[in-house]
Amino acid sequence: MSKILIVGGVAGGASAAARARRLSEDAEIIMFERGPFVSFANCGLPYHIGGDIKDRSKLLLQTPESFLARFNVDVRVMNEVTKINRENKTVTVKNMIDGSEYTESYDLLLLSPGAAPFVPPIQGIKNPLTHTLRNIPDMDRILKTMQMNKPEHATVVGGGFIGLEMMEAFHQLGIKTTLIEMADQVMTPVDKEMAGFAHAEIKSHGIDLRLGVALESVNYLPNNHVADKNAGETSEHQHLQGALELTLNNGDTLKTDLLIMSIGVRPESTLAKEAGLRLGDFGGIYTNDAMQTSDPYIYAVGDAVEDTDFVTGKPGFVPLAGPANRQGRIAANNMLGGDQTYQGTQGTSIVKIFDLAVASVGKNEKTLKREEIAYEKVYVHTASHASYYPGAEIVSLKLLFSPETGKILGAQAAGKDGVDKRIDILAVAQRAGMTIEQLQHLELTYAPPYGSAKDVINQAAFVANNIINGEAMPIHFDQIDNLTDDQLLLDVRNPIELQNVGFIEGAINIPVDQLRHRMSELPKNKEIIVYCQVGLRGNVAYRQLVNSGFKARNLIGGYKTLKASQE
Amino acid sequence: MSKILIVGGVAGGASAAARARRLSEDAEIIMFERGPFVSFANCGLPYHIGGDIKDRSKLLLQTPESFLARFNVDVRVMNEVTKINRENKTVTVKNMIDGSEYTESYDLLLLSPGAAPFVPPIQGIKNPLTHTLRNIPDMDRILKTMQMNKPEHATVVGGGFIGLEMMEAFHQLGIKTTLIEMADQVMTPVDKEMAGFAHAEIKSHGIDLRLGVALESVNYLPNNHVADKNAGETSEHQHLQGALELTLNNGDTLKTDLLIMSIGVRPESTLAKEAGLRLGDFGGIYTNDAMQTSDPYIYAVGDAVEDTDFVTGKPGFVPLAGPANRQGRIAANNMLGGDQTYQGTQGTSIVKIFDLAVASVGKNEKTLKREEIAYEKVYVHTASHASYYPGAEIVSLKLLFSPETGKILGAQAAGKDGVDKRIDILAVAQRAGMTIEQLQHLELTYAPPYGSAKDVINQAAFVANNIINGEAMPIHFDQIDNLTDDQLLLDVRNPIELQNVGFIEGAINIPVDQLRHRMSELPKNKEIIVYCQVGLRGNVAYRQLVNSGFKARNLIGGYKTLKASQE
Repeated sequence: MSKILIVGGVAGGASAAARARRLSEDAEIIMFERGPFVSFANCGLPYHIGGDIKDRSKLLLQTPESFLARFNVDVRVMNEVTKINRENKTVTVKNMIDGSEYTESYDLLLLSPGAAPFVPPIQGIKNPLTHTLRNIPDMDRILKTMQMNKPEHATVVGGGFIGLEMMEAFHQLGIKTTLIEMADQVMTPVDKEMAGFAHAEIKSHGIDLRLGVALESVNYLPNNHVADKNAGETSEHQHLQGALELTLNNGDTLKTDLLIMSIGVRPESTLAKEAGLRLGDFGGIYTNDAMQTSDPYIYAVGDAVEDTDFVTGKPGFVPLAGPANRQGRIAANNMLGGDQTYQGTQGTSIVKIFDLAVASVGKNEKTLKREEIAYEKVYVHTASHASYYPGAEIVSLKLLFSPETGKILGAQAAGKDGVDKRIDILAVAQRAGMTIEQLQHLELTYAPPYGSAKDVINQAAFVANNIINGEAMPIHFDQIDNLTDDQLLLDVRNPIELQNVGFIEGAINIPVDQLRHRMSELPKNKEIIVYCQVGLRGNVAYRQLVNSGFKARNLIGGYKTLKASQE
Repeated sequence: MSKILIVGGVAGGASAAARARRLSEDAEIIMFERGPFVSFANCGLPYHIGGDIKDRSKLLLQTPESFLARFNVDVRVMNEVTKINRENKTVTVKNMIDGSEYTESYDLLLLSPGAAPFVPPIQGIKNPLTHTLRNIPDMDRILKTMQMNKPEHATVVGGGFIGLEMMEAFHQLGIKTTLIEMADQVMTPVDKEMAGFAHAEIKSHGIDLRLGVALESVNYLPNNHVADKNAGETSEHQHLQGALELTLNNGDTLKTDLLIMSIGVRPESTLAKEAGLRLGDFGGIYTNDAMQTSDPYIYAVGDAVEDTDFVTGKPGFVPLAGPANRQGRIAANNMLGGDQTYQGTQGTSIVKIFDLAVASVGKNEKTLKREEIAYEKVYVHTASHASYYPGAEIVSLKLLFSPETGKILGAQAAGKDGVDKRIDILAVAQRAGMTIEQLQHLELTYAPPYGSAKDVINQAAFVANNIINGEAMPIHFDQIDNLTDDQLLLDVRNPIELQNVGFIEGAINIPVDQLRHRMSELPKNKEIIVYCQVGLRGNVAYRQLVNSGFKARNLIGGYKTLKASQE
């Protein structure tokens, strides 16, 4: 009979506790949670603030009582484990309610303390109107501030998952919102040109999006009256708690009624570090692939640990709910005699930004460049289902692959329908070690309401294979600015499209369907840089040209990709 | 310079023509189509009839003119190839407009004639009110009949893709509809218990669904007046073309105003057969994996050919648009010097039935039994995305796998959201040769609007692995009827659920959360057959019982699966 202590009662910890009980009826299982809640839906918090999830109790997936009844787990909320005493295999616990301390012995210990929002030491940042969002008490505090302060304007710092979701929540509540992001793009898991789709969506909803700028200082103006910013209106309202004046590092100032800091999280590894457990390069707890720390009696899972990157094999810090939950299960298996390994993290993720989904898996181009991994890439923009059936939306997909092995290095997608499906397909294919050659043969569900006979994924694979096989000579959007005098831009769309959506300065226009009869207008001594809207007609034109003795390249992903990169 | 003739201008033929031109600018390409249209959206036809696709022209993806302009393909509609003269490499062509005949020579010939609806020789079946649906003229005829006859009642014979889509189309137009299917289920690609979800959906929309019964004879009542069937109403309306009296093989008769025959299709292989090309066991054209027929100068693709089954390696007849399109591309590659192989057909398919999607991939249980392939199966019913976020729907998933290798043999799913995604994920995993062990580790997109931290697929893999690892002893819904006196049924749901959704006769009820304290109520000398609603709480209870020394089994997929099997 083992005695298992678990530190942290959300995602990984709760998964491990439930799994451990299913494996052993007589193990003693105690779960410590320093907050008042266990097993709550942390990913749902922004959606309760925004009103999508009306009922707060829906976020409480389990209670200490339900955990006890179903799994016979002794759940101790408001109990913080403050010290691990490895030599005698005990932990020191502080009861947060009465301040008392006690020790509890263990045979096996599981650490699942998670990651905490990181707030840089910005001048004035500690004030009643500035919040982070990690748990139910944080959410309640934000809701209370909103109730008391009736914000007309909110500012979110950080364009990651939580930041974007909070931005949408505020907008949904009719609160004018500014989103500040230090990088030149939101959603760093995707590359900048793919983030362009997010930028367009954000701006189209009237969000004040400020990229490439950082918050420098905060000035708290307590309990004052602030004139409504809408010029010409005379209304005033009282801010019970006051307002904030933000100063940005470009000198701009901004008045706001509520500030959310969501620039990122850091692993909660202090407890592990103080116990002398090995940490990784990113400050997370080191584990082997059995989720065992450097102490064989101590396991660790979730946002506090470093994961092995599925593509590179290197350690990384990827705090996501999916890996946390599966790691919890694996740790429980292994603590109770199993022998299961965690098989690396791809970082598959998705975020909803108003009507748009932006998702990714594997490595992005920035990282591949930085790590000097050879790659090629393609872009396609293809309907989410048969375009003649109502409701089809464009899925914009970027696929990164190895030119040597053909393996999938990463993928990113944006669109209003079917984005999760395409990234999931590629996540499976990547995990299975499939090549772009094999992706061509994928046989996916097709009926007009759901897909196309040649799916987005098949299309992307066709384009990728054309490049690998030498049937297509690509040029990418980021090379268009650097054309030489020996290159000529040829737009093969219809004139009306150039009028409606714009074109590249200096391009000549011959619609693809006229090209065969108008080739004599093109010079044979220049390289023809063909482009169309998404790359498909461009490829038809490109093939005509090279099969007719011209030198040519086709802009992969077409004008739409170029345009997205400028958003 | 090659001269390529293509027989058939839809899906496979059109794909091949376009691809061939991209590969070679100077090949001569002629495409013959005996109908008036090429490259039309055959999968969209029912949706135009039902009104979802309002604009008929949206179904015409290409015209002979557009094909010529873009691809320099000589498209000859209303030209039927009537004979292949292999010895001198020519075809005989009949011009359907003026009846004239001519020959055309080829270097390479591609056959893509498709498959034709099969109509059995039922007495009276040839009449103006009975139609099949394969192409635009068929659709136009149905629309014309509807316009003239103003049907109040329509009958569809055959519960496959077209039959179900036509049923929905009629219902959408306010036409009372009877669906007749000879088998005991619709959608034969899935097993009967999974079809149960479709049956429930169909019946809930007021469709008169008649399973296990066949059409025996048809009596055409031309141009008469038919009293409105609604008792109490006095309205009458004139049927310009009349009505039909159907007699079924159970003796029932049925009056209807329009009859659609959609019991299946047969490969159009007469031309190939008469030319002495090898056919397969199912009557389709035989090809090797390069899509080459038994004559090396003749290729064949699409619904007219037999495909190699991805799972069994045996030939089969699976007429689907996805394979047709990809085969067309592969054939073009190979005709023009390439060396690409078609890598088998999984039969991935999906159909929309009102709000429900029903999809499948690989082999179903019926076939595995018939072919004596060892299998195990699991069922899960899991929310399409985080259940606390609005819009989540249950995905009911059946996963069939090899107990020896752990490989995926097949999968079926039904639900109102996320069904296409889950079957696509499993289609990729199956094609990649993944095992159920590997499925546990899939890292799929998760945010509350799109998925769950443990996706449906992870859940199904957990259940499957529990069985394989001996951590779960399954019992299936089809074994519940045959329990012995040594077995005891234990329902671990809450009493209110039993009241609301029913229970299995003879079961005793102890809610899972009370089980630990009420185990003494259970006999140790009997095998406890545990069940809950979907199998999850059942597993918790099952583990408690076996870890406490009881013999037990858990009903995989729970009461919900049993219930579906009875629909």
